[in-house]
Amino acid sequence: MRALVFDGGLRLVSDYATPLKRPGESLIRVKLAGICNTDIEIAKGYMGYTGVLGHEFVGVVEETDSPHLLGKRVVGEINLSCGQCDLCNSGLRNHCPNRSVLGIMNHPGAMADLCVLPDVNLHPVPENLPDDAAVFCEPVAAAFEILAQVPIESGQTTVVLGDGKLGLLVAQVLRTTGADVLLIGRHPDKLRLAEGWFIRTVPSEDSWKAKQVDVVVDCTGSTEGFALALDLVRPRGVIVVKTTVADRFFINLAPLVINEITVVGSRCGPFEPALKSLSDGSVKVAEMVTGIFPMEQALEAFEVASRAGSLKVIIRM
Amino acid sequence: MRALVFDGGLRLVSDYATPLKRPGESLIRVKLAGICNTDIEIAKGYMGYTGVLGHEFVGVVEETDSPHLLGKRVVGEINLSCGQCDLCNSGLRNHCPNRSVLGIMNHPGAMADLCVLPDVNLHPVPENLPDDAAVFCEPVAAAFEILAQVPIESGQTTVVLGDGKLGLLVAQVLRTTGADVLLIGRHPDKLRLAEGWFIRTVPSEDSWKAKQVDVVVDCTGSTEGFALALDLVRPRGVIVVKTTVADRFFINLAPLVINEITVVGSRCGPFEPALKSLSDGSVKVAEMVTGIFPMEQALEAFEVASRAGSLKVIIRM
Repeated sequence: MRALVFDGGLRLVSDYATPLKRPGESLIRVKLAGICNTDIEIAKGYMGYTGVLGHEFVGVVEETDSPHLLGKRVVGEINLSCGQCDLCNSGLRNHCPNRSVLGIMNHPGAMADLCVLPDVNLHPVPENLPDDAAVFCEPVAAAFEILAQVPIESGQTTVVLGDGKLGLLVAQVLRTTGADVLLIGRHPDKLRLAEGWFIRTVPSEDSWKAKQVDVVVDCTGSTEGFALALDLVRPRGVIVVKTTVADRFFINLAPLVINEITVVGSRCGPFEPALKSLSDGSVKVAEMVTGIFPMEQALEAFEVASRAGSLKVIIRM
Repeated sequence: MRALVFDGGLRLVSDYATPLKRPGESLIRVKLAGICNTDIEIAKGYMGYTGVLGHEFVGVVEETDSPHLLGKRVVGEINLSCGQCDLCNSGLRNHCPNRSVLGIMNHPGAMADLCVLPDVNLHPVPENLPDDAAVFCEPVAAAFEILAQVPIESGQTTVVLGDGKLGLLVAQVLRTTGADVLLIGRHPDKLRLAEGWFIRTVPSEDSWKAKQVDVVVDCTGSTEGFALALDLVRPRGVIVVKTTVADRFFINLAPLVINEITVVGSRCGPFEPALKSLSDGSVKVAEMVTGIFPMEQALEAFEVASRAGSLKVIIRM
C-alpha cells in the first residue's frame, strides 16, 4: 500500500506492508488524513518516532470482527491501551503506560491506504457530516478535553492564547459553554476567521486587562505562552496547557503560589461531543481547510502545512 | 516599643512607634513570634519589604472595638483585605489586590511588643493550647489550605517533598485525611522526627517508584522540587506547590501536558482546622521548636533559624 513514512527523512512509499489486523481490531481504508503540528514535529525528527505518520483521519472499515462496524465510515481515538493495567481499569485508558499511539508511538499511522485500530477506538461518523469535517474530530476532541477537566460556566471569562488550528478550535469549544471567550493571536487573517464566528479577538501586541481572567488556555505552541497566561489569569484562576513545547524554558513559579493558580495539562479528549459539535455546526471547520492534496503530493502538503499562515492541510488517499 | 525591623539591615529598635489601631482593628500585645523562612528571605533583602518583621504570633488583645475579644489570647490571619473589591466579595479575601500583609507587605509585623490586625482576622486560642504551640497556627493553616484546594481521600498515595518546617507540618496535615503519606527529605534528624509521628520517610537520594503518586506536595523551597514532583506524580495526578521560590528555573512542561497533571499553587489557609488540630494533638509541634529566644536576642534567634539543621525558632517578647 501507499504510505507516508518518516525514517530520518519524510518519504512517500508505494509498496509499504499492510498493517496486521489482530483480534478485536479493524482494518480501515483511509479516505482523508489531516496534518497536525505533531506530524510536522515528527517530520523534523523531534519526536523520536519512525514509521507511518498520521493520527487524524476518516475512513471506512474494511475488515473487522465487529459486524456493526463493517463498511461504516469511522473516525478513531489514537491511544491503543492494554486494557489490563491500573490506569486502564480506573478509566484512564488514554494514560495507559503500555499504550501505543497511532502514528506517534509504536503504531503505524493513518497517512496510508490502510490503517488498523482497536474496535473500541472507532466511532461511526454521522451521515450528515462530510469527510473534510469529520477529519477534524481528533483535534476537536482534544479541545473538548478541557471541558472534561475544568468546569467552565456561562458568564465566566476565558482567554485562548494562540490563533493556530488548535486555538481556533478551542475558542469555539469554550464558547459552547456560554462563557465569554477572547482569542489572542498574531495573525490578522486567523483572527478575522474567529470574528466571523462571533468570537472576540485581540492582537497579542495589545494590552489586555491583567489578572482578571477565570480560565486561560495556552495554545501558542511556544514557550512564551505560559508566562503570558500567568499575567492574565486571576487569583485562584486556571491555566490550561494544551501545547507540548519540547523546549525547556525559564519560569518563576512564585506568582502561581501567591495567587493560588491551578495549571492543568490537557491532551486527548472525548470523541462523542466532538462529533456532535461538528454535526450541529457549533464548531465550524470548513474555513479552516487551507488545502486538500492527493496522496501523491503528500510531501508538498507537508510543506504547505509548515508555512506560518497555514491552517489545516488534508491528504486525500 | 521594641521592634525587630528590616530597613536594609536587620535591627532591634527599642523606641519604635506603636502601630495605630484604626476602627475595626485590635491592638495586640505579642507574647511569642515565630521565625518563618519568609522572614529570613526578607532579612536578606529578597522580598522588597522594609518595616517590622513577623507574621506568626500569639498575643493578647489589649485594645479593641469588639468587646468579646478584649483580653483574649489570639492568633491572627495575616492578610488585611479591603472588604470591598470583587475578590473580597467572592470570598477570596486572601487574594484582595488591595491587601497588605502582616510583616510582609505594607503592614508592620508581629516581632514587636505590639501589633495591630483587623478584628475579623483574629481567632481566640483554646485554653488548653500553650503559647509555644499556638504560635504555629499560621503555618499549620497554610498546610490545611492544601485540603481546602485539593480533595485528598483515605487510601490515596501522597508524597511530601522537603523535610523542613513546612514539610513536617504538611505531612502531618495530609495524614489527618487517612491518606498514605511519604515524606522525602535530606535531613536524617528531621526524618526521624517524622518517623516518631509514624510518618513513613525516604532520604531524597533514594529512588522511589515514579509516576505512581496521587498527590505530591513540593515543600522543598528549592527550584529542584518541581521537576522531582513531575517525576513522581501519576498521570492525572496533582502537584501542590507550597514554596515560593524567587528564582527562575528551567523547566519542560511537556510531561505535564502528556500526563495531564494538575499543578495547584497554595498559600495561606484556614485557621479553624489549624487550631483544632493543634489542640487535639493530631498535628504535633513541640519537637519542632529549636529554641525560644528573648526579644533582646532576636538577632541571634535569626542566626540560629537560618542554620540548615534548625526548625522553628521563636522570639519571646
